[in-house]
Amino acid sequence: MTEKCGVVGVSLDGRDAARPLYYALYALQHRGQESAGIVTHDGFQQHSHVEMGLVGDAFGEDDLDTLNGAAGIGHVRYPTAGSVDSSCAQPFSVSFKSGSLGLSHNGNLVNADEIRDELAAAGHAFTSDGDTEVIAHDLARNLLEEDLVRAVKHTMQRIHGSYSLTISHDDTILGVRDPQGNRPLCIGELEDGYILASESAAIDTLDGELVRDVRPGELVVLQDDGQGFDSYQLVEEENTAHCFFEHVYFARPDSVIDETLVYEARRNLGRKLWEESGVETDVVMPVPDSGRAFASGYADAASETTADGEPRDAEDDGVEFAEGLMKNRYVGRTFIMPTQDERERAVRLKLNPIKSTIEGKTVTVIDDSIVRGTTSTQLVQLLKDCGAEEVHVRIGAPAIVAPCYMGIDMATREELIASDKSTAEIRNEIQADSLAYLSTDAVADVLGKERLDLCLGCVTGEYPYDIEGEETDRDVSRPDIGGQQLPADD
Amino acid sequence: MTEKCGVVGVSLDGRDAARPLYYALYALQHRGQESAGIVTHDGFQQHSHVEMGLVGDAFGEDDLDTLNGAAGIGHVRYPTAGSVDSSCAQPFSVSFKSGSLGLSHNGNLVNADEIRDELAAAGHAFTSDGDTEVIAHDLARNLLEEDLVRAVKHTMQRIHGSYSLTISHDDTILGVRDPQGNRPLCIGELEDGYILASESAAIDTLDGELVRDVRPGELVVLQDDGQGFDSYQLVEEENTAHCFFEHVYFARPDSVIDETLVYEARRNLGRKLWEESGVETDVVMPVPDSGRAFASGYADAASETTADGEPRDAEDDGVEFAEGLMKNRYVGRTFIMPTQDERERAVRLKLNPIKSTIEGKTVTVIDDSIVRGTTSTQLVQLLKDCGAEEVHVRIGAPAIVAPCYMGIDMATREELIASDKSTAEIRNEIQADSLAYLSTDAVADVLGKERLDLCLGCVTGEYPYDIEGEETDRDVSRPDIGGQQLPADD
Amino acid sequence: MTEKCGVVGVSLDGRDAARPLYYALYALQHRGQESAGIVTHDGFQQHSHVEMGLVGDAFGEDDLDTLNGAAGIGHVRYPTAGSVDSSCAQPFSVSFKSGSLGLSHNGNLVNADEIRDELAAAGHAFTSDGDTEVIAHDLARNLLEEDLVRAVKHTMQRIHGSYSLTISHDDTILGVRDPQGNRPLCIGELEDGYILASESAAIDTLDGELVRDVRPGELVVLQDDGQGFDSYQLVEEENTAHCFFEHVYFARPDSVIDETLVYEARRNLGRKLWEESGVETDVVMPVPDSGRAFASGYADAASETTADGEPRDAEDDGVEFAEGLMKNRYVGRTFIMPTQDERERAVRLKLNPIKSTIEGKTVTVIDDSIVRGTTSTQLVQLLKDCGAEEVHVRIGAPAIVAPCYMGIDMATREELIASDKSTAEIRNEIQADSLAYLSTDAVADVLGKERLDLCLGCVTGEYPYDIEGEETDRDVSRPDIGGQQLPADD
Amino acid sequence: MTEKCGVVGVSLDGRDAARPLYYALYALQHRGQESAGIVTHDGFQQHSHVEMGLVGDAFGEDDLDTLNGAAGIGHVRYPTAGSVDSSCAQPFSVSFKSGSLGLSHNGNLVNADEIRDELAAAGHAFTSDGDTEVIAHDLARNLLEEDLVRAVKHTMQRIHGSYSLTISHDDTILGVRDPQGNRPLCIGELEDGYILASESAAIDTLDGELVRDVRPGELVVLQDDGQGFDSYQLVEEENTAHCFFEHVYFARPDSVIDETLVYEARRNLGRKLWEESGVETDVVMPVPDSGRAFASGYADAASETTADGEPRDAEDDGVEFAEGLMKNRYVGRTFIMPTQDERERAVRLKLNPIKSTIEGKTVTVIDDSIVRGTTSTQLVQLLKDCGAEEVHVRIGAPAIVAPCYMGIDMATREELIASDKSTAEIRNEIQADSLAYLSTDAVADVLGKERLDLCLGCVTGEYPYDIEGEETDRDVSRPDIGGQQLPADD
Repeated sequence: MTEKCGVVGVSLDGRDAARPLYYALYALQHRGQESAGIVTHDGFQQHSHVEMGLVGDAFGEDDLDTLNGAAGIGHVRYPTAGSVDSSCAQPFSVSFKSGSLGLSHNGNLVNADEIRDELAAAGHAFTSDGDTEVIAHDLARNLLEEDLVRAVKHTMQRIHGSYSLTISHDDTILGVRDPQGNRPLCIGELEDGYILASESAAIDTLDGELVRDVRPGELVVLQDDGQGFDSYQLVEEENTAHCFFEHVYFARPDSVIDETLVYEARRNLGRKLWEESGVETDVVMPVPDSGRAFASGYADAASETTADGEPRDAEDDGVEFAEGLMKNRYVGRTFIMPTQDERERAVRLKLNPIKSTIEGKTVTVIDDSIVRGTTSTQLVQLLKDCGAEEVHVRIGAPAIVAPCYMGIDMATREELIASDKSTAEIRNEIQADSLAYLSTDAVADVLGKERLDLCLGCVTGEYPYDIEGEETDRDVSRPDIGGQQLPADD
Repeated sequence: MTEKCGVVGVSLDGRDAARPLYYALYALQHRGQESAGIVTHDGFQQHSHVEMGLVGDAFGEDDLDTLNGAAGIGHVRYPTAGSVDSSCAQPFSVSFKSGSLGLSHNGNLVNADEIRDELAAAGHAFTSDGDTEVIAHDLARNLLEEDLVRAVKHTMQRIHGSYSLTISHDDTILGVRDPQGNRPLCIGELEDGYILASESAAIDTLDGELVRDVRPGELVVLQDDGQGFDSYQLVEEENTAHCFFEHVYFARPDSVIDETLVYEARRNLGRKLWEESGVETDVVMPVPDSGRAFASGYADAASETTADGEPRDAEDDGVEFAEGLMKNRYVGRTFIMPTQDERERAVRLKLNPIKSTIEGKTVTVIDDSIVRGTTSTQLVQLLKDCGAEEVHVRIGAPAIVAPCYMGIDMATREELIASDKSTAEIRNEIQADSLAYLSTDAVADVLGKERLDLCLGCVTGEYPYDIEGEETDRDVSRPDIGGQQLPADD
Repeated sequence: MTEKCGVVGVSLDGRDAARPLYYALYALQHRGQESAGIVTHDGFQQHSHVEMGLVGDAFGEDDLDTLNGAAGIGHVRYPTAGSVDSSCAQPFSVSFKSGSLGLSHNGNLVNADEIRDELAAAGHAFTSDGDTEVIAHDLARNLLEEDLVRAVKHTMQRIHGSYSLTISHDDTILGVRDPQGNRPLCIGELEDGYILASESAAIDTLDGELVRDVRPGELVVLQDDGQGFDSYQLVEEENTAHCFFEHVYFARPDSVIDETLVYEARRNLGRKLWEESGVETDVVMPVPDSGRAFASGYADAASETTADGEPRDAEDDGVEFAEGLMKNRYVGRTFIMPTQDERERAVRLKLNPIKSTIEGKTVTVIDDSIVRGTTSTQLVQLLKDCGAEEVHVRIGAPAIVAPCYMGIDMATREELIASDKSTAEIRNEIQADSLAYLSTDAVADVLGKERLDLCLGCVTGEYPYDIEGEETDRDVSRPDIGGQQLPADD
Repeated sequence: MTEKCGVVGVSLDGRDAARPLYYALYALQHRGQESAGIVTHDGFQQHSHVEMGLVGDAFGEDDLDTLNGAAGIGHVRYPTAGSVDSSCAQPFSVSFKSGSLGLSHNGNLVNADEIRDELAAAGHAFTSDGDTEVIAHDLARNLLEEDLVRAVKHTMQRIHGSYSLTISHDDTILGVRDPQGNRPLCIGELEDGYILASESAAIDTLDGELVRDVRPGELVVLQDDGQGFDSYQLVEEENTAHCFFEHVYFARPDSVIDETLVYEARRNLGRKLWEESGVETDVVMPVPDSGRAFASGYADAASETTADGEPRDAEDDGVEFAEGLMKNRYVGRTFIMPTQDERERAVRLKLNPIKSTIEGKTVTVIDDSIVRGTTSTQLVQLLKDCGAEEVHVRIGAPAIVAPCYMGIDMATREELIASDKSTAEIRNEIQADSLAYLSTDAVADVLGKERLDLCLGCVTGEYPYDIEGEETDRDVSRPDIGGQQLPADD
């Protein structure tokens, strides 16, 4: 698994790529804090620096100075429970007959083990058990016999699952997005070159212009002189499987995915939430910072129509939007957990309720998700202790009922409160006066997609991939790798 | 100098104070990131742990386990330019004839050198050159001959300047606030004891109730059984000198100072700002997170009245409040600075402008202050590059024209852009279409104080203290220490 | 290059191998301080822990606890100038079709690049540029088609150069020594298993018994039950090329190589030195600790015969053996180098001359080698400053005139003082009253070998291998890899 | 307690003292590895750098660069069990009325608590509970009213116990040795100044000349121009109390104490050991490195006379001196201890017996001491396992029967094997064939002292100081501090 990670690739006209890659990774830091790495190529030689930790800690000036070359790729890796393993830090780099390869991977293959076995049978030896090494070996093998574009195509035909890749083949930088476009990847134009990145915010950081998303099944090859890029639509599928959760939770609000600002999408989801399940309370407040955009849209909609869908009267003050929960901005850094009997107070270290905003009021709290339910329970209690008359919880996305296999590490099925509880039961458990999630139809509607073009696995339990022990929501015909005959002429 | 720091003191009924102190310091982390320390007393022995770094890094479980005792104090220290010196980390602890003392200090004495010289003449030897050690020695000397309350009183009569102190005298915890109440200090009630803290947010974190601010010139002694506290009004002055900047910038928005929620004070300053210098633009946006509360109040006021002070028509949509700048939440952690020619882009790493919100629009940006002007210049440029038609800058506080001597490390006078430039000149330098600061009268008005009861030194250049080379805004009669005769009977 | 390193392999009857491997590496620490690593296999899974630094720093209790399995190998790596590169730390581990491989390598291949190219042409991708990965891939490829013994044989037939290897193939432990036996490797019997190690001192540490050296060209396979080992003489060459420098300098004095205690060999070289170039002086003193054994033998011989080879008279007190130089036992740890003008004094920080032993005396100083000459120059000066009448230098080995290509990192040819200076010129440069080295014939004589069975490259400039730009001292027929036809039936 | 530490002080003619101090501390590293510190004074200001760890780790180039001034002192501190406390690291530095003081202390006061109480009663506050702060405060107090020499004298009259001090009073460097001369301290002349150091080896390191030991009760003041020093014999006592253990165990062999090279003293103790309890065996071997000098003297004496004290015949080969135990030179660095059942093998990790030297032989092993007996037991077992016919243990010092109160951290009385066991019982416990210690008379004889001029507390249980619960071997009249009247005219 290479989980929710951030990838980037840059090709410039002469200038060293290391610093732009560094700043791009810095902009993608939210996608992975476990490790950070950069691989560059100066035309003669590949340079690599990969380390555990945050971007700012993983690289010093000296490290950037040794990463010569106008072309390179980078990676930030998400900390996955349990396996903090430096052997999985990326980019993965290898040298082989016709040169060197660097790979940054965001996503998760479904058939990595099969391909690994086949490659092993052909004599390949593996130093890690990651998907990325499998892709690298497969690509390297293809490159022995065919050109870059065909090699990538054949690898794409063999691997199945979710992948957004940036690849360095010597000093040529490539971007690849899986045929269903599960993870984001976009192209940006810089002053003196081009960039591929998981999110457009990384392009902004470098003062670049977002050109467009890489298309599902597309290979983008950055030109070595930084003057443009070439596009190859190598594989096509009937439906896409965009991860809706990128919009709801994972991507930066200032990134543009599918031509929509994530912040705006979240505001619109919030508007829908009011329309679907609005409740008239004295105040609406976000859980900072995750619920802020949703709450802003929710409150906006609430200022226009009543919970019954009627236009507001001029005299009707409607629902007040307020900052009723303040966040300790040092949260997330190391700290010693409270002891068992202090545990209930844990949320208090992160969120401080503002009494004057809450006391004696009916309150709606907006967030983007409920995972285990523990925090929500504490939060409702906190607000009631603070004097809230009623606490209504509204969630800007559907309930998460099943795990993600495509690269977002949420929790095991057992840990997910909604995996075996109805909304009524959850409401009861968290002791809220009411609870509502957004519908999946609303999500599709807001994102402007058919449901079938989205990966909704975690909220429906039906996946756009063939995953052992899970149901699929589409007709999946995975390539039969074992007996695969590479097409004669492509 | 002990700069802008955070102090805390806790006395509980039996339960160890170390963990509550730890969480309180965690809540005060924004007041100081250079070092953190806790001193406790278990009735027999004093325990101390002080280390450089953030609270979460400075303490491990083992450290807390050795800090025995139901009484203790804590400190977080602000990183002052140049002197990252572990010998100044606090609490400062000493043992002397009648027991042990621990001191946590927030503030800055004006006459520390004089007292130090006098104590030295009396044979005292100092291990640091900090104010805190001076207070500790003076107090220890007094305690040789008189009881605790008188000893504190006599020390308060000798020291001049700004100080909020938490003190442990063996297992008795004291809180002292200077006669002008320059730095905040408040009292909170916990389930099983009492707490003194720089800000009420620390009390909230422990599920406590804010009782009230410690009064200027007051000594508060927490009772050893955690059942209450005793108050001694030891020194009184005609006027206070509350730091208005705590409200504007330094304190957490969820803290209550002078019975006012800081967040509300900021919103009200924002409202005043609209009233004083509102300008009609398409959008109003905060610089996150510092300008958020001001912008919220500003936009609120703007939705009610026009820039001319007229009530809005129902049809007039007024000024739209928008999140047009998105913050990289990893900013502030270590990172490699851009090279000289990338420097202009530095602000871009922190703030990403949302094109769809800005392009083709007239924009008002709200922040809490302009210090050197560099960031503002870059920000205006950023917004114009992003397509803003006009960029108007509004600041929710008066211009900073002079340094702070009372414990907030802003910048030297030379660095302050407003120290030798008019508002018009600054507007020109940062290339904004218009620029306005809030007036000092508005500040006093919003905070509900007489101007003379506030320390406005940094925005007027006139200080409520007698500082060499600076003007004072009041009649200052500093105690003549050398010839001081301690009163016979108090 | 894998330089002068230490390797070990252990197979036990049930007990975990990690701790025995750890203590064995600790005993081999002198062979490499750059990195340390252990790979174990528990029958199901391979475990690996490799880190930069000394053995004691690289492993914690937790690390050993996770290294499950009764079979494993270990490695300590010598710090080579320039390339402190974690990607070269060993053991190198890979998984492939039929299992997993771990490799620890001491030595240096001559034809690694050729084999790498060939493997790359066959589709292999490499993550490092070390010899060890080349051997691992070649072996893994062979294992796809043949059994372990044949696979090792074919790899041995392809690789050329110096190698002592310990290999884990799943939970089977192998030891391989190159056909010329350049680097040492020996077999030991433990209470409940067998061990392979670079030096017998590692066996002693585990209370084991040295069985014998692994023979040049031999493969030793430890039985999985710890009950014995199997031997396969896979390749044979007419002459060996044992590194004489292991005996002189590199190995621990308490190791037994070629059935001779290294300490005794050094004493005997010292005796020869007296016979060849003894000089009558008041005292003989070693440079501690490197010259101690040589000086002890030299002084012994000197007590029996005069410098002219005559038996001593009973009255002739002969040469006195004395400790005239004392070593600071903290030398070698980090310290700040003296400034340029203090530089001459650098040796003084390490070695302190004892005035009472030296003043007014004629002195002979014994060491094992002169590399750059700087230290010797300083030492002679130091002794003369201390009042020595004459200073005679005797070296227990021939002069080093050429670099080592087989794994001992001495210095570049330019740095070697003897590469372009005669003994007379060196004597003049170091300002000694006389200087003598041991002859190469004496070395061969003492070690009981034909000259042609030793690698004397660094003292003769003629190598037992075909090294580009250097002369060879024998008929070298390297395998023609490109067109190699693997024998049909072996 | 300031235990066995190393102190140094340097005053130069212009050149910065920091580097010479650094190298001197490096030479004294064996006296303390817990912390290292330097305090310098540049005529205007005191500079200090004190850190936990070895000298090489505690100081970087930058640190030395900030330690300006031609005068300074340094300290290395011995790691005392339990209290690894940075607040006790030295030099201790304070500023007071007439300037600044730095103190480095080796030794242990007997009446520190009394003086501390008295000073506390006079208003002094203490930041640590170390002896050194007590001396500093007392000295600072005296300096308020009298000149430096008188101040030191009065402090020396008050403090009781063992102390060798180097002191910086602004840029004046002083050395003080207690009236009984318990710990060593010597004066050296450098090219451009003077040095005070615990041991002469530190002087050698700086190419200086040992002038002489500081006399018991003497104050030495280095002249500020580096041209000389002034001596004041401030206090005199009838008898000295030199620690004999410095000669036996603690000092470097290349240091000269009391005009005798420590190495020679150890050899002579070894000679005496043969005379007192020699036993004819095939070989004599030292425990490296601690027993080497003793064994060398023992073997020398054995080559001259038989165990019966008769001169050897010419034909009698006598006892052979051999290196039968080889030391792993990485011992002492971190490593994971063997588990309980491997524990017996612990000594094996440090010492490797040479079978060829031991097997079938009768063996005498020489060491400097037996503390707990554990190592000796293991060692005897090791030699017997290796085939020794007989193992005789000889110790170059008397049995340690009681703890040291004067600064050498040996062990508690309960841990000392000889505290409650006779030599016969110890022999039985360690399973040696015979065991003998050196007599205390022999020690006094070899060191050329009256028994009453030595501190033999740890081997007799009678101390030259008045220690609660212990016996004294002399008439001790401690100053009655409480009622002390400082003499009117001195």
